[in-house]
Amino acid sequence: MAKLQMGLVGGGEGAFIGAVHRMAAELDGRVALTCGAFSSNPAKSRRAGVALYGIDAQRSYGTYGEMMAAEAGRPDDDRMDFVVIATPNHTHHPIARAALDAGFHVMSDKPATFDLAEAKELAALADEKDLVFGLTHNYTGYPMVKEARHLVRSGAFGDVRRVVVEYIQGWLAEREEATGNKQAEWRTDPARSGAAGCMGDIGTHGENLAEYVTGLKIESLCADLTTFVPGRRLEDDGNVLLRFAGGAKGVLFASQIAVGEENGLKLRVYGETGGLEWSQMEPNSLIVRWPDRPYEVRRTGGPGVGEAATGATRLPAGHPEGFLEAFAVLYRNFADTLDAKRAGKKPTEENLDFPTIADGVRGMAFIETVVASAEAGATWLDFRT
Amino acid sequence: MAKLQMGLVGGGEGAFIGAVHRMAAELDGRVALTCGAFSSNPAKSRRAGVALYGIDAQRSYGTYGEMMAAEAGRPDDDRMDFVVIATPNHTHHPIARAALDAGFHVMSDKPATFDLAEAKELAALADEKDLVFGLTHNYTGYPMVKEARHLVRSGAFGDVRRVVVEYIQGWLAEREEATGNKQAEWRTDPARSGAAGCMGDIGTHGENLAEYVTGLKIESLCADLTTFVPGRRLEDDGNVLLRFAGGAKGVLFASQIAVGEENGLKLRVYGETGGLEWSQMEPNSLIVRWPDRPYEVRRTGGPGVGEAATGATRLPAGHPEGFLEAFAVLYRNFADTLDAKRAGKKPTEENLDFPTIADGVRGMAFIETVVASAEAGATWLDFRT
Amino acid sequence: MAKLQMGLVGGGEGAFIGAVHRMAAELDGRVALTCGAFSSNPAKSRRAGVALYGIDAQRSYGTYGEMMAAEAGRPDDDRMDFVVIATPNHTHHPIARAALDAGFHVMSDKPATFDLAEAKELAALADEKDLVFGLTHNYTGYPMVKEARHLVRSGAFGDVRRVVVEYIQGWLAEREEATGNKQAEWRTDPARSGAAGCMGDIGTHGENLAEYVTGLKIESLCADLTTFVPGRRLEDDGNVLLRFAGGAKGVLFASQIAVGEENGLKLRVYGETGGLEWSQMEPNSLIVRWPDRPYEVRRTGGPGVGEAATGATRLPAGHPEGFLEAFAVLYRNFADTLDAKRAGKKPTEENLDFPTIADGVRGMAFIETVVASAEAGATWLDFRT
Amino acid sequence: MAKLQMGLVGGGEGAFIGAVHRMAAELDGRVALTCGAFSSNPAKSRRAGVALYGIDAQRSYGTYGEMMAAEAGRPDDDRMDFVVIATPNHTHHPIARAALDAGFHVMSDKPATFDLAEAKELAALADEKDLVFGLTHNYTGYPMVKEARHLVRSGAFGDVRRVVVEYIQGWLAEREEATGNKQAEWRTDPARSGAAGCMGDIGTHGENLAEYVTGLKIESLCADLTTFVPGRRLEDDGNVLLRFAGGAKGVLFASQIAVGEENGLKLRVYGETGGLEWSQMEPNSLIVRWPDRPYEVRRTGGPGVGEAATGATRLPAGHPEGFLEAFAVLYRNFADTLDAKRAGKKPTEENLDFPTIADGVRGMAFIETVVASAEAGATWLDFRT
Repeated sequence: MAKLQMGLVGGGEGAFIGAVHRMAAELDGRVALTCGAFSSNPAKSRRAGVALYGIDAQRSYGTYGEMMAAEAGRPDDDRMDFVVIATPNHTHHPIARAALDAGFHVMSDKPATFDLAEAKELAALADEKDLVFGLTHNYTGYPMVKEARHLVRSGAFGDVRRVVVEYIQGWLAEREEATGNKQAEWRTDPARSGAAGCMGDIGTHGENLAEYVTGLKIESLCADLTTFVPGRRLEDDGNVLLRFAGGAKGVLFASQIAVGEENGLKLRVYGETGGLEWSQMEPNSLIVRWPDRPYEVRRTGGPGVGEAATGATRLPAGHPEGFLEAFAVLYRNFADTLDAKRAGKKPTEENLDFPTIADGVRGMAFIETVVASAEAGATWLDFRT
Repeated sequence: MAKLQMGLVGGGEGAFIGAVHRMAAELDGRVALTCGAFSSNPAKSRRAGVALYGIDAQRSYGTYGEMMAAEAGRPDDDRMDFVVIATPNHTHHPIARAALDAGFHVMSDKPATFDLAEAKELAALADEKDLVFGLTHNYTGYPMVKEARHLVRSGAFGDVRRVVVEYIQGWLAEREEATGNKQAEWRTDPARSGAAGCMGDIGTHGENLAEYVTGLKIESLCADLTTFVPGRRLEDDGNVLLRFAGGAKGVLFASQIAVGEENGLKLRVYGETGGLEWSQMEPNSLIVRWPDRPYEVRRTGGPGVGEAATGATRLPAGHPEGFLEAFAVLYRNFADTLDAKRAGKKPTEENLDFPTIADGVRGMAFIETVVASAEAGATWLDFRT
Repeated sequence: MAKLQMGLVGGGEGAFIGAVHRMAAELDGRVALTCGAFSSNPAKSRRAGVALYGIDAQRSYGTYGEMMAAEAGRPDDDRMDFVVIATPNHTHHPIARAALDAGFHVMSDKPATFDLAEAKELAALADEKDLVFGLTHNYTGYPMVKEARHLVRSGAFGDVRRVVVEYIQGWLAEREEATGNKQAEWRTDPARSGAAGCMGDIGTHGENLAEYVTGLKIESLCADLTTFVPGRRLEDDGNVLLRFAGGAKGVLFASQIAVGEENGLKLRVYGETGGLEWSQMEPNSLIVRWPDRPYEVRRTGGPGVGEAATGATRLPAGHPEGFLEAFAVLYRNFADTLDAKRAGKKPTEENLDFPTIADGVRGMAFIETVVASAEAGATWLDFRT
Repeated sequence: MAKLQMGLVGGGEGAFIGAVHRMAAELDGRVALTCGAFSSNPAKSRRAGVALYGIDAQRSYGTYGEMMAAEAGRPDDDRMDFVVIATPNHTHHPIARAALDAGFHVMSDKPATFDLAEAKELAALADEKDLVFGLTHNYTGYPMVKEARHLVRSGAFGDVRRVVVEYIQGWLAEREEATGNKQAEWRTDPARSGAAGCMGDIGTHGENLAEYVTGLKIESLCADLTTFVPGRRLEDDGNVLLRFAGGAKGVLFASQIAVGEENGLKLRVYGETGGLEWSQMEPNSLIVRWPDRPYEVRRTGGPGVGEAATGATRLPAGHPEGFLEAFAVLYRNFADTLDAKRAGKKPTEENLDFPTIADGVRGMAFIETVVASAEAGATWLDFRT
């Protein structure tokens, strides 16, 4: 089957996430970046496609609207199959809506949208149009995350009791947004980022990872959010107590002012008869603890690992797979799903193992709930979507 | 100067903590265990002294009251100097009170007492009688904890912003108290343990460590406590949001149902310009993070470490010091303080670097506050002592 | 500039290294796999190109000879630029020779050839034809290996005194070659692998890494090689004493029977005033030790790291880069070199930072010397190329 | 039974190892330091006993000869039971000989003596007099070393194939002996240290550990020793190839110029069906690897650990035990052996699990063999005792 054609919105000069999408999407030879609108400045946008990505000038569009229209008009066997959205949060909704309206599948950066209402609207629209809407909660693509999920869901630990999920970074410990850092600028700007800063940018990854692995839904929460850096307009740190449906308890904390921390996403889950620990900083190891025998370390590509992890592994054990490879697992499953649909088949459960706009709705609800809780003085609120 | 004589209350057959006190107290050759009352059963008590500790039969007492009386009557240069209390919580107060009344210094297990009122009474009494009252928040004795404290307090990180302290164990993941395990029995019994289970037993260590290292006081908290094991009468798990005086925020969590975890006390502190991480499981390393250079690992006995840590170190770098050695640092400083007093001198700040009943008052207030918060549905309460 | 066109020899059904080359070469968008000869069976070869790599049927050749001829006859702006050799060792020389004779640049798997004479011949031929001949000692592509090299070569440690390099695996602890495992079959077959098994397959990586980082040349060595698995025809384990020009000493050991080890390549270097440690299993950390201050951990993408490492890094710190990314650094520099030549420019030192047939000559000399040493009873031999 | 009385030779001002012996010997309440001769200067010696160790002035002797005579003349139930030798190597033999001649058991620092002949003589003498002669290869006292030994010897891994043992330090990377450091002075002085420097001081620990854990004997070796620091009179670094009886192969390397390394003793053993790794720097973990399941980490005090390890463990899992505790395991077993003899019983195999002068003979043979091998240009020599 021919490669799927991907159109990228965003990812112009200075935006590292655009290159990440390109590398991850193309890694398995299933997808080709063939068109895009890379900047809100049309001239820059056209230049970037050619200069940064080696795309034909005629498919390096000035705007995403132009792209949707032009691509929709191309022949069936040589046009964009899906749109990747790699832009600041406030633009996700209009771009995604335009893509869906034009009949294109979507893979979008998280958090899904600017607010919850927008995410719900997109979910409904994708559903109505029977289009696939992926969301890059990319950390779920790691083989050892899939192994963790398999272990918990297979009942190896009995009922889950305690969850600890943390995501700590240090890059915003100073007022980086005042130094010309574009990544910091929009993330700390309420008009572009949404109701939350840190909690939207990375807290939602924590929320998603915890729910993905445990299969449990957060039922209520109590959030204490703080803006530590003077002059910053959105919170840069937060601590959240969690209660899950069924009785598990948890803590989620996220920070962008934890000086010296790089990208410390870490999950711990404890059930009645076992527990696990996974850290994104050393993603190829999964520590599994038991009450009555030594703890074990399951490894990407290693022995004793289940099918879900193995299916997300490209190399033999000991050949470290990293961030890009995990990101690429999302794209591979997304591509499998699209290919199944192209072939008129029903995507399998394996094909569909990637985050979607449904996760995005939960993420946006998480943002709105933690912000509301914090504004009410860190009180308990139900978590509803 | 002659060795200080120590009288041990508790530590009979099957109580590992008695041996810990003996080994730790005697390690530096400053203290000798010379008498004790080791069991609430007088016959067993008398036998234990001789059989377990090689103490003279005449100083192996049947009860602690007997011990206080007899030792007080011995000659000045050959009698007990201080009492060690290594018994369940509900007996701390009467024993300590008897010791203070009889004019003996005290080193007590934590939490200080059964409730806050008792702790306050003991603090006042020790003060009134000018007696020294140590408390075995033993983790503060590790050299790298002292280095952490030195770093934070020297201002190396600027103001502290975020604190994460956790203490997780798995040994009570099942109903251990129903199996004849005496340690589990009293710790889960409200009549002997006090208002809290897990939070009293290990949560207070977390609270103490965080305050010791940062020098900050918890100002208010919100605690969600849970009893996961069916039939258990006290909580075995808890998550607490913290607010410190001065604006720092934090999370404290403790669990005794985290299957497979051994004794996972861990502290992370982040300030404006640096951060640190210390874990009791690998206690000779202190990770120190900076915004602008690689993170460093300070080591017990290693280069670049300050005087407080060096003063608590007995061996060259690379000769691992452990739990007993840290415990023994408390005893050494306690002995230094007692010796200073014996010599009619004022103990130095270094001498006095061990936890006392003042910490015990805070610990008991912590217990009462987290329990009250949890009972009120995990709401915010001021933390007052 | 248009993407460079790569022709792959090898990499058919069941050969994971072919996919590795494809992913690594294409990662940075500089190279496209456009043709190949994937199997020694012409029919299988033609099928594989289309089925495994999505290559045009007309450029999925039956043999590499066919490929060289056909591609040489294509128009200048649409033909293969270089040949990738991903086949068993005994075929490297004929394929490489054919490629060079036909005027194509080469990127070859290691060890370079079946024996030293072949490697020297290829080196001379590439030189004579002014063609670029890369060799996939891929571990030199890791950012932290480049940082290590920078540190040592900048003189930060003074003269190097001690080197320890090890590469241990466990996958051949049993007679895997008797189970139908093709990777094991040819690697343990003297007719296909060459004079050495383990030492050729992974020992040469160790030799290359040590020389790359330190800039020192092995001057003499003493090797004790062993075949532990009964029935195996080549050694599967070896220990080698090293003496470097200038007086440094070292140890190199490699094993494929170290049960449970995955891909344990690790280098330690100690100079007069500092030392370092790097492990392929956690490749994004470089431990740097000093005599008078805490050890530090330099990180891929992290602060305090030099230009060579930064130039080989694609993502911000904390986004783990792995085996494929490091492999892709070789391809990127190789592509930069080819592009410079296409553009009529002299490649820079940065462009040329990838292993070449000159390293291959050293690697083959290493193999012949360790085998000769071992056969002579593990005696010292000069290491000459 | 009354405490065993220990007499210490050495351990005066500035000698940390004396305090180590005191703490380790007394830790379990089985031994009391009651007399000694602490310095070669009689006046200093007498003062040290009182000032450093709180010993009675009358039992703080001026010389070890004086001590032997005086203690031999004391009543049976109140005299020294054994002599601890904590002095430079060249004095071990005369002191030990005097002790044995006077009828005292001995616990001596390693290496056993100045040369092999002396060690053999002591072994014969101890045997003849039926006296116990322990040797402080203290690293064998760690619980996880005992677990490693149990695993290998129980056949869990099949036949051992490969052994890697290393011991690297950095404290002699500069000419420390020229700075007044007494520890460095005698260790680098051929007249006091013996034929070897680094290999005697720490290499012998490696040799002992490898043989203790595997139960295999080194049969021949090839050693390349180097003196890196200008002006130093003994080697400070060495690499040794090992061949064991039965066919296992190994590498031993030791260094005191590995800048920044603390006390890096590490052992790896690989058999046919499993392998293990233990590091003194994190001594409470033992990594155990298997071909067909995830690797496991056995822990001091943790589940799934055998009796030998459990018997050497004092605290529950997660309460780190360190260097002193391991050292004290030797003393405890030594005391058990002496007590058995006092009681007229035959010591059990558990009692006798401590290194003796027989290990010392092997250690001295190791030193002489590596030195002879190195002097002959790093050639193979048989290892005979």
